[in-house]
Amino acid sequence: MIAVLRFGHRIDRDKRITTHVALVARAFGADKIIITTKYEKIKENITSICKKFGGNFQIETGVDPKKIIKQWKGTIVHLTMYGDELEKSLSKIDKTDDLLIIVGAEKVPPYFYESANFNISVGNQPHSEVAALAIFLDRYFKGKWLTKQFKGKIEIIPSNKGKKVISEKGKSD
Amino acid sequence: MIAVLRFGHRIDRDKRITTHVALVARAFGADKIIITTKYEKIKENITSICKKFGGNFQIETGVDPKKIIKQWKGTIVHLTMYGDELEKSLSKIDKTDDLLIIVGAEKVPPYFYESANFNISVGNQPHSEVAALAIFLDRYFKGKWLTKQFKGKIEIIPSNKGKKVISEKGKSD
Repeated sequence: MIAVLRFGHRIDRDKRITTHVALVARAFGADKIIITTKYEKIKENITSICKKFGGNFQIETGVDPKKIIKQWKGTIVHLTMYGDELEKSLSKIDKTDDLLIIVGAEKVPPYFYESANFNISVGNQPHSEVAALAIFLDRYFKGKWLTKQFKGKIEIIPSNKGKKVISEKGKSD
Repeated sequence: MIAVLRFGHRIDRDKRITTHVALVARAFGADKIIITTKYEKIKENITSICKKFGGNFQIETGVDPKKIIKQWKGTIVHLTMYGDELEKSLSKIDKTDDLLIIVGAEKVPPYFYESANFNISVGNQPHSEVAALAIFLDRYFKGKWLTKQFKGKIEIIPSNKGKKVISEKGKSD
């Protein structure tokens, strides 16, 4: 089980960013996203994308992060620009363990730094939790998420020109 | 010169996403972002981050995308979930050429698909233009952006516990 814990989502301000975090979690091979803020609309949105594009990705919102962290039996990673080097940290993670990846919005309280087994930076420049999560999962799965099959109602066929989409009704361009 | 062309930014809705796109462009080694929508606030924001964290990253807003594309002398890549496979496409790009990377917001008109030398997908699942740009630049630079020196007023030292920051005034934790 690989879960992403999205902490500190601010309704309105972070709406689109949290949606991108959830979609990256799904596309890059995580099993679940837990958003600490109660947020039905994002749940509906992600569930509808999952129905269309396939896979068993789960979403939960309105959860106490401390409860999740206390009950977690596997490894806990916190992605932060202040964290330790990516490659060095990755080599220490036991991949047979369940993994909880904490992704904060703005200011993250010390509790999360202290609870994590690994505070990991994806570069030490300010950029984006969406990009940090993508790069972390890409490295964790050694790029294998790129060929993951989701078996959805819609399948996109890679193409250099135009859009090639296979839907349940047949093929259309 | 590696430039990112952010097309179709909708004020309000895409504010934070476009900021993340710009910060990823900078942190992952691009030289410039061109945002087609006129947008002074994001320009000030990114310029202020550059002053603090260093580097020569440039930002331009309110530019006609067709003019940029017509005048571009190097390779043009358009990142889209409908595009061709990442690794396959990357191997065809001449890295001695200037590179323009088009990153759309929502619906991208056919003109952009047609103008690009390469329409490239970072996986064929819906996720995020922020993640797509990050993974593309990561692969393009073979991970070397991670150790790029920006020589800013602030430097963050990788650390597994706590925050280690060197500022012009000296070291503080």
